[in-house]
Amino acid sequence: MTTTSTETVLSSQDLLIHWQGHRKLTRKLIEAFPEDKLFSFSIGGMRPFAAMIAEFLKMAAPIAKGVATGTWGKFEEDLGDVKTKAELLRMWDESTAEIDAIWPTIPAHRFSEVDKAFGQWEGSGINTILYAIDNEIHHRGQGYVYLRALGVEPPPFWER
Amino acid sequence: MTTTSTETVLSSQDLLIHWQGHRKLTRKLIEAFPEDKLFSFSIGGMRPFAAMIAEFLKMAAPIAKGVATGTWGKFEEDLGDVKTKAELLRMWDESTAEIDAIWPTIPAHRFSEVDKAFGQWEGSGINTILYAIDNEIHHRGQGYVYLRALGVEPPPFWER
Repeated sequence: MTTTSTETVLSSQDLLIHWQGHRKLTRKLIEAFPEDKLFSFSIGGMRPFAAMIAEFLKMAAPIAKGVATGTWGKFEEDLGDVKTKAELLRMWDESTAEIDAIWPTIPAHRFSEVDKAFGQWEGSGINTILYAIDNEIHHRGQGYVYLRALGVEPPPFWER
Repeated sequence: MTTTSTETVLSSQDLLIHWQGHRKLTRKLIEAFPEDKLFSFSIGGMRPFAAMIAEFLKMAAPIAKGVATGTWGKFEEDLGDVKTKAELLRMWDESTAEIDAIWPTIPAHRFSEVDKAFGQWEGSGINTILYAIDNEIHHRGQGYVYLRALGVEPPPFWER
């Protein structure tokens, strides 16, 4: 028996568990940062980790909602006036609950349907969701370098 | 219509395209590194980027083969005596072709079947493959910080 191109390898529920597992690890990284460094530390002119977190938050639940409903707001990268780790963590947890609530309402066909995320990025629902996950892993990996450079031991990558 | 937990969101072919797209971007990062820095540059005591590439190579095709056949060798992280960018790129391209060749031979049931990757890490085929992809995105993100710290503009993340 060999695999055909239409063979299922991942279900909607698997994907939610996969994403929320990654989001749990990202939350641990937020916690691991010294509060001032979270909003200020940078290497090579890159953004502080809090700005990356803001980007994840602006993508995550809005993408779940956009894939579920076909309705997209404008993409905004920053979170306005957030200045504390506690506030970032609170927003993170709200986003986690929001994604969990939206997920079962995603119509099956929307994963393969091509749409314009935030009115500007064309892709199928699954590709837009995978982009959000990959983008989070990518920038979180950069957060690991920031922590190492600060002398802080980061949480293990495989711990979700 | 709502999604059930068994709803397909990703096919085997989609997953191969997704992975090889990421691998193409990783190849661009290898190319972007100044040759000496590829094997020596480090931040916060982390490995040079070439050592991360070695890890990806030791995981990628062997995981495709292990998921396809159920046969696993021992996991070895290093690549022995590789000292040039050209040699790393040649190994990368061989790995790309090997994954493409193995992929259609993966029996459908092996994506969900639980196995012990390299005789030591338990997980379903799909989870082991996703781990390899995520691990590559994670460490490649660290390579982006290295390049920025070296004053080199990295290739855009969204370019596959």
